[in-house]
Amino acid sequence: MIGSGREHEARAEEVGRLLAERGCTVVTGGMGEVMAAASRGAKQAGGTTIGILPGERREDANEWVDHVVVTGIGHARNLAVVASGDAVIAVGGSWGTLAEIGLASRLGRTVVILEPGLSVEGVARASSPEEAVELALGKLR
Amino acid sequence: MIGSGREHEARAEEVGRLLAERGCTVVTGGMGEVMAAASRGAKQAGGTTIGILPGERREDANEWVDHVVVTGIGHARNLAVVASGDAVIAVGGSWGTLAEIGLASRLGRTVVILEPGLSVEGVARASSPEEAVELALGKLR
Amino acid sequence: MIGSGREHEARAEEVGRLLAERGCTVVTGGMGEVMAAASRGAKQAGGTTIGILPGERREDANEWVDHVVVTGIGHARNLAVVASGDAVIAVGGSWGTLAEIGLASRLGRTVVILEPGLSVEGVARASSPEEAVELALGKLR
Amino acid sequence: MIGSGREHEARAEEVGRLLAERGCTVVTGGMGEVMAAASRGAKQAGGTTIGILPGERREDANEWVDHVVVTGIGHARNLAVVASGDAVIAVGGSWGTLAEIGLASRLGRTVVILEPGLSVEGVARASSPEEAVELALGKLR
Repeated sequence: MIGSGREHEARAEEVGRLLAERGCTVVTGGMGEVMAAASRGAKQAGGTTIGILPGERREDANEWVDHVVVTGIGHARNLAVVASGDAVIAVGGSWGTLAEIGLASRLGRTVVILEPGLSVEGVARASSPEEAVELALGKLR
Repeated sequence: MIGSGREHEARAEEVGRLLAERGCTVVTGGMGEVMAAASRGAKQAGGTTIGILPGERREDANEWVDHVVVTGIGHARNLAVVASGDAVIAVGGSWGTLAEIGLASRLGRTVVILEPGLSVEGVARASSPEEAVELALGKLR
Repeated sequence: MIGSGREHEARAEEVGRLLAERGCTVVTGGMGEVMAAASRGAKQAGGTTIGILPGERREDANEWVDHVVVTGIGHARNLAVVASGDAVIAVGGSWGTLAEIGLASRLGRTVVILEPGLSVEGVARASSPEEAVELALGKLR
Repeated sequence: MIGSGREHEARAEEVGRLLAERGCTVVTGGMGEVMAAASRGAKQAGGTTIGILPGERREDANEWVDHVVVTGIGHARNLAVVASGDAVIAVGGSWGTLAEIGLASRLGRTVVILEPGLSVEGVARASSPEEAVELALGKLR
């Protein structure tokens, strides 16, 4: 789960919850906003969460991250976030999210953009958290 | 200079030439296609070129790279390519280029997309190599 | 847990087992030899394991890794391995392990070398897996 | 050229000067102390210098760097520094330098430690800047 923007937190939390209910481990960048929201949603549904941080300090992870990965490589950790997922769901987001969509697609990972979201040609879009999770999982099968 | 696609090489070479004529050092990812073309154009105009490689071998650089930087970090080297430039001109390109545009914008670097090119909201576009270089340099002043 | 060398696998497995018994999550580079052995030991004791891979493919992780992190950054993933641990225990090892000991120490992580092991001035040494785990955990308190 | 420590600057400057006189491009981490000293020595001898920075800002490079590479990947840039050289000379240094010696050796780069320097088994040592440069270049031939 990638993205940013406080106004997208409710949907991110729902995505996290739905993924956990399906038995998926939720991987995020481990920081705030939609990353925290998706992790919170996953934990509320009894799921497992991984947070892959850009900095060098474990303490930077949000409280809903079970397993903290500290990369120390700044924005290059975006590559690790998307590479570690079987599929990537983008919620909101700005330039960093655009970079992650590019890297994920480059590596052949399934990418789904949840509406409203970034405009990127050639990437699947979903109108609801349910549809986003369906698309992400469906494409994996 | 970032991008990919054999059909964009002529324009990339022109961009490299124009940048060198303006006294700019041309930084690319050091590999083939438009990266090689831009470096070749810069060298033909007496310029200096840097190639920032994803792998671990100096020999992977194209022959028009003066200074080879070997990063060993795969696609994460895209961050180093755009971070090392004052401005970034995208010629053609696919997912890797999209990621670079995202990373460059995230870092506050000036980004210009040369037509025809990727469709990214909020990024300046130029209809010719001359205009791309003007926009890139003009924004720096 | 860092290191390499087939002849050190028994001790690495023991370190993994002891760490899991203490409730620690075992983080390794996710590949073979001592990384696999430490993960196996941790799983046999009911623990949790994380593997932080250098490449771009989840399939490269050994079978005892619960949570696979795919970094795509080659040897630079060594930084993420040691940064993600509260303490680092080195078992056997060669140049990559030496680099990890340097990076871990640079970041202020506790480092313990299990005998026989690399010779590095200023790093604590332990003569048995038990002592290594004690030193690693003791220093954390 | 890698290393750190103000007390080693004079020798680092001499190494930079000798490398430039031999026609070598001097690659460093681009920051202060011995990195700045080696770059200064190279420039005084009319050489070319490259600085590979850990952060995201070109302005962090010392004034004797001709070509600034901005990686944004923190300590993982140590990999790029040593990978970009045909040979690596270590002057002084602490944990970061130890990591670089490990990474350089892992990649098969020639490594020479200038006395007094870090104690690392299996790495060539030189008692003077002249000998360090001889060993580094000699091994390349």
